[in-house]
Amino acid sequence: MDFGFTPVMEQWQQRVQAFLDEVVYPAEATFYEQVAAQAQSNPWGRPPVMAELKAEAQRRGLWNLFLPGERGAGLSNLEYAPLAELSGRSPMLAPEAMNCAAPDTGNMEVLAHFATPAVQRQWLEPLLRGEIRSAYSMTEPEVASSDANNIATRIEVDDDELVVTGRKWWSSGAMAPECKVAIVMGLSDPDGERHQRHSMVVVPLDTPGVDVRRSTHVLGYTDGPHGGHAEIVYDAVRVPRENLLGELHRGFAIGQARLGPGRIHHCMRLIGMAERAYDLMCERVQQRVAFGKPLAAQGVVQEWVAEARIRIEQARLLVLKTAWLMDTVGNRGAAVEISAIKVAVPEMATWVIDRAMQAHGGMGVCQDTVLPELYAQARMLHLADGPDEVHRMALARRELKRYA
Amino acid sequence: MDFGFTPVMEQWQQRVQAFLDEVVYPAEATFYEQVAAQAQSNPWGRPPVMAELKAEAQRRGLWNLFLPGERGAGLSNLEYAPLAELSGRSPMLAPEAMNCAAPDTGNMEVLAHFATPAVQRQWLEPLLRGEIRSAYSMTEPEVASSDANNIATRIEVDDDELVVTGRKWWSSGAMAPECKVAIVMGLSDPDGERHQRHSMVVVPLDTPGVDVRRSTHVLGYTDGPHGGHAEIVYDAVRVPRENLLGELHRGFAIGQARLGPGRIHHCMRLIGMAERAYDLMCERVQQRVAFGKPLAAQGVVQEWVAEARIRIEQARLLVLKTAWLMDTVGNRGAAVEISAIKVAVPEMATWVIDRAMQAHGGMGVCQDTVLPELYAQARMLHLADGPDEVHRMALARRELKRYA
Amino acid sequence: MDFGFTPVMEQWQQRVQAFLDEVVYPAEATFYEQVAAQAQSNPWGRPPVMAELKAEAQRRGLWNLFLPGERGAGLSNLEYAPLAELSGRSPMLAPEAMNCAAPDTGNMEVLAHFATPAVQRQWLEPLLRGEIRSAYSMTEPEVASSDANNIATRIEVDDDELVVTGRKWWSSGAMAPECKVAIVMGLSDPDGERHQRHSMVVVPLDTPGVDVRRSTHVLGYTDGPHGGHAEIVYDAVRVPRENLLGELHRGFAIGQARLGPGRIHHCMRLIGMAERAYDLMCERVQQRVAFGKPLAAQGVVQEWVAEARIRIEQARLLVLKTAWLMDTVGNRGAAVEISAIKVAVPEMATWVIDRAMQAHGGMGVCQDTVLPELYAQARMLHLADGPDEVHRMALARRELKRYA
Amino acid sequence: MDFGFTPVMEQWQQRVQAFLDEVVYPAEATFYEQVAAQAQSNPWGRPPVMAELKAEAQRRGLWNLFLPGERGAGLSNLEYAPLAELSGRSPMLAPEAMNCAAPDTGNMEVLAHFATPAVQRQWLEPLLRGEIRSAYSMTEPEVASSDANNIATRIEVDDDELVVTGRKWWSSGAMAPECKVAIVMGLSDPDGERHQRHSMVVVPLDTPGVDVRRSTHVLGYTDGPHGGHAEIVYDAVRVPRENLLGELHRGFAIGQARLGPGRIHHCMRLIGMAERAYDLMCERVQQRVAFGKPLAAQGVVQEWVAEARIRIEQARLLVLKTAWLMDTVGNRGAAVEISAIKVAVPEMATWVIDRAMQAHGGMGVCQDTVLPELYAQARMLHLADGPDEVHRMALARRELKRYA
Repeated sequence: MDFGFTPVMEQWQQRVQAFLDEVVYPAEATFYEQVAAQAQSNPWGRPPVMAELKAEAQRRGLWNLFLPGERGAGLSNLEYAPLAELSGRSPMLAPEAMNCAAPDTGNMEVLAHFATPAVQRQWLEPLLRGEIRSAYSMTEPEVASSDANNIATRIEVDDDELVVTGRKWWSSGAMAPECKVAIVMGLSDPDGERHQRHSMVVVPLDTPGVDVRRSTHVLGYTDGPHGGHAEIVYDAVRVPRENLLGELHRGFAIGQARLGPGRIHHCMRLIGMAERAYDLMCERVQQRVAFGKPLAAQGVVQEWVAEARIRIEQARLLVLKTAWLMDTVGNRGAAVEISAIKVAVPEMATWVIDRAMQAHGGMGVCQDTVLPELYAQARMLHLADGPDEVHRMALARRELKRYA
Repeated sequence: MDFGFTPVMEQWQQRVQAFLDEVVYPAEATFYEQVAAQAQSNPWGRPPVMAELKAEAQRRGLWNLFLPGERGAGLSNLEYAPLAELSGRSPMLAPEAMNCAAPDTGNMEVLAHFATPAVQRQWLEPLLRGEIRSAYSMTEPEVASSDANNIATRIEVDDDELVVTGRKWWSSGAMAPECKVAIVMGLSDPDGERHQRHSMVVVPLDTPGVDVRRSTHVLGYTDGPHGGHAEIVYDAVRVPRENLLGELHRGFAIGQARLGPGRIHHCMRLIGMAERAYDLMCERVQQRVAFGKPLAAQGVVQEWVAEARIRIEQARLLVLKTAWLMDTVGNRGAAVEISAIKVAVPEMATWVIDRAMQAHGGMGVCQDTVLPELYAQARMLHLADGPDEVHRMALARRELKRYA
Repeated sequence: MDFGFTPVMEQWQQRVQAFLDEVVYPAEATFYEQVAAQAQSNPWGRPPVMAELKAEAQRRGLWNLFLPGERGAGLSNLEYAPLAELSGRSPMLAPEAMNCAAPDTGNMEVLAHFATPAVQRQWLEPLLRGEIRSAYSMTEPEVASSDANNIATRIEVDDDELVVTGRKWWSSGAMAPECKVAIVMGLSDPDGERHQRHSMVVVPLDTPGVDVRRSTHVLGYTDGPHGGHAEIVYDAVRVPRENLLGELHRGFAIGQARLGPGRIHHCMRLIGMAERAYDLMCERVQQRVAFGKPLAAQGVVQEWVAEARIRIEQARLLVLKTAWLMDTVGNRGAAVEISAIKVAVPEMATWVIDRAMQAHGGMGVCQDTVLPELYAQARMLHLADGPDEVHRMALARRELKRYA
Repeated sequence: MDFGFTPVMEQWQQRVQAFLDEVVYPAEATFYEQVAAQAQSNPWGRPPVMAELKAEAQRRGLWNLFLPGERGAGLSNLEYAPLAELSGRSPMLAPEAMNCAAPDTGNMEVLAHFATPAVQRQWLEPLLRGEIRSAYSMTEPEVASSDANNIATRIEVDDDELVVTGRKWWSSGAMAPECKVAIVMGLSDPDGERHQRHSMVVVPLDTPGVDVRRSTHVLGYTDGPHGGHAEIVYDAVRVPRENLLGELHRGFAIGQARLGPGRIHHCMRLIGMAERAYDLMCERVQQRVAFGKPLAAQGVVQEWVAEARIRIEQARLLVLKTAWLMDTVGNRGAAVEISAIKVAVPEMATWVIDRAMQAHGGMGVCQDTVLPELYAQARMLHLADGPDEVHRMALARRELKRYA
């Protein structure tokens, strides 16, 4: 048992930290200015500065860090965790700048494991180079998607084609002109066994029958510069059978495999978001004076600071241990911990960010800080990839088995 | 002691309820459609349906209910409370439709009490008729405005004119073309006694030197159809001395007097917002099925429902008692209770709305329900009109005096 | 709607307040000294001072205030509520001094409504005069008694006798020599309809077969001076059939009827206990100095004070409204509110008392204040008369029916 | 960074676990029976079984594990942490059985570092052998001892003697016949610099002038079998000057040095107490049936289980990291973390134990489980060794310095 970072981990962290300090933070203002400037002309597209950030990240070798194996940086989950955390400090810019943003990360993993070489050449390669973006179509508006058995979208085999019919939403990123392809989960064998009913398929977004209808917001945010969150109707969309990922009717397992790393990546970034909020809070309360002294001298504010530090540290340690478990006993062996962080980290993050907002007064809820946008993202993660309630239930059931 | 509503109160409630059911709720979709349609052409203006709602409210005698005395409906605070609550169930439409929306309500009260007859003719009369809208310029970006001594905007006497110089923000509504006038608080005697340094003055927004710069958002929402929240630079703005409200250097007391009713009105509406969220939550969990049964059959969801009901009821009773106290012993005698509700009601409301969001899954954070917009408004009220911390401090100090 | 106390209510409150100030508070130290002195000789008996308090309460006409009708003081629930609250400020002394302590209150109500005249003469009359004490045997150690269907104790008819067989615990008061009789709930028709299986019977504690085994504690408290909480084995205990309360197999409904007032009485007293803790906290923080100033000047302590005041006020209003509802629409019509206060009031009380303990430092958890004993009582009420979870579930189900 | 236990750590844990399973748990019932049996004859003494447990622990080499260096087991803080946690699973028996119970552990450390060889021979040696017990007299009833500057007890030099005069309380263990000596902190130079005013001295309890007055309880518990918590009056008590610990007027630093390990030991044991409560809760809810299914199938209960697991894991990781920091950068370098765990762990533990109590119904608050006694201990640790508020303040001030 050793809580110290290895020299290799420290070196990686220094490189990402330098990228943040030298490149990302200075670009944040530009990012928002460009987003505002293109609000009418290109509301769902990346602002030009993103391309520059990506080029610089690639130049520095900070690219595809999330991806294990030779296609990525070869980092373990434990090694990647503090880097993802750092990227979360500037969550609108840094993850994408390093080609480590959801949902592309999960999609690239799935394509790397389950796509045919031809599909990999067509879609995985440009994604790995950051030339295009992708979406993941799982959630549906009409059913509670936390229970996969509710999924109603159909994927039917017709000779050498697959036919996709259904309505999906929260397909994040799909409003963007850069987004070219979606991975879609659907029901291919409604009468199959519980976890052998679904298939997963690659659908180019320019296929006839794909109708990207509108974007859902998160609180008041469109997430425009990241391509929003699309509602997509798939109306008898035909793709070649080779677009199937893995085996027919085995999509559920792929979805589960995709979610493990996806959930921990979200949690890692949330730690960074909480640290960003914490920094902003501490700076603010040192500067702001009311009733004759800095807010930092108020006992109530000190309680927020202390509680925030205590909660962040605990959450980070649990995330790091979970990453270590995934590395040592596998995602399945870390199931309790993955559910645990999926509950604990958003809870910590929304609390810390909310206190930082409160410490800023009116400034804390408006566009003059990143805080409300961080809040919206953290709040969303009480729901995305499984709501808190479902994770608590799953965790408890596993634990209680030991006492049956 | 009697917890029953009087027949008069019940009758008023039925009339407002009927207005909601017959007129307001059916207009909500139209409201948002018109807002979207004029997003480019008139981003800060009212959608046309608002004029229709106002006409209908006037026709039904549901107009200026907030205002005591002969200019209004002659209701006590206790009588008005449940009506304001009802208006909070559709907070974007109903309060303004009945000419009972902040900040106009507070401004009208101030004008009615402290303006000269000429100023009343010019500004109060059209406000009472709902023909124009007004703003209140108190908060400043550079200082913690929860401590009035921090206010830096200057109001100087120059012969028969007053000269206003400073920067204000969160002047809600002032982006709107309908908004014609602001009430501005500033420092007129920096060396005066602590509460005798400020003056309050009426400033028409077309006066030279008034520069409405931009609007601040609330958790991503622009509050466009209500004129946003303006940052305004007052650069040596000159108005006639008769635009002074009350006496010179006595503006602090006017501000305090304005805040009592303002705070309770906010709280009344928040109760209604919480009830709206509660209704949406209960309807949703009865309809939505996961894991083989409606969400309403899940113990965790039942806990949310029970806790929400318990919290709303307690908050409502405290608001009603506070209104009754204001009616019987005056705003000053109800100071502890006003601080109490200003803390308790936003806390209750953000919790209830947040649970309703959670119960809706992804739908709960997007534009498909009013929930996230309600959340933003409730969250703002942890800060507006005094942050929670300051009210708790004030309340505690008053209480602790009894034990000194 | 009127939040003011009527002159009659105010007069009653002044009389009870005077009794507290002049008689009860001055006797508290004596009470604990006498309890300590008789710890070996009479560990479950009343200390002598209790008889003096009772005599004085009777002299002052503060006797059986809880009981509606001519046998009691003729007060409504709403009139009694603030008096029960006041008695809760000295919960070890005042309720019993005024013959208003559980479980005798509930037992007297049941006897008054459902016993034959002969049984009333034998047991109700001495209880009303405060000459003896009684117990209520419902909960059983082997089953979850929150679900009445679990009750396993049998009550069988044998000619003109009833035979009681089973094991009960938490029969509060039954360890005391003064306690002469118990009301026992048992299963008389196991195959009857769900709520028509139980009977309720009066069992003198000196009947052969009654074995009072031991007492359970609450946290570390024996509740010795109130007769503890007895575990009682009823081994084929025979009583005459006239000891039956109400009709055969209709005991469930009597139990429910008993619980409504019982629960609100507990809540009323809890409000008083919270107020006592609040007073102690405020006095303490005004006197105690640390880091150069009274604790009362610390922001964190001010938050406790403010929150405690806010929570107590809300809880009290909800209890008062519930009492008013019970008076106006009946116990059944107030079911949601009774469940609501049974959850909300213990939650408020444990929080307030816990903060008062914390404000006292080490003194707050030891016998130098009443705080830890108050805490134990309040904690118990998260369980007694139905655990929080069951009340929340019941409340939610009732509410959700409106949305089905 | 490695979250796995080393083989050496695992081996130690297996040995302590075996001691618990084979010796301690089976002795728990005997312990409580013997305590009850000697309640009159020896209310503050150890029950006989304790000597047997100690002999067995010594035989197994599980003795003085807390003590670094050659006198103890030579374990680091990180190595000791999981062993202390295990001992916390049976906190009344296991820590003392292994001679690892407070306050002796801290006293032995202080004597080992700061006492003269003669004093060590007289007092440290028998303590290390477990033959006698000791007390620590720091807290005073009249002042807020969380601020060391408040300490009023005087230690005056009179030739070759030291004269101690003052009143202390919460001198845990000092009621026991086995307790022979106290370490006393007092003011020796009232005009010295802030942290150079105090001295620390060894006082045999049979010295003339030492008056052990009474014991304070914790939530109704006397902690009798551990010698209670004594209030002691030191009335001009004279001891030889060689009884001074360290240098004159340097007692404050010794006290601080003593507290670091003391606090983390408490936290380690609290983790074990929380795990014990968790086990009891999970077993109970699997067995207990209500409303037709085991409590474990209720969503609300599952939430308790999941939250408890999440909170325990996070707290444990923070404690382990703190131990590792103490080992690697020293107690001073771990100051923020020590304050963090001193706040976070009692908060976690009281919550988990409280939920376990609730899951047990009436059984959970009485003597039929260890839960309420665990609760009392955990609750006490929100105050002992510095109240939560003071630790949060200290932590926040350190953190905020980085932003000044």
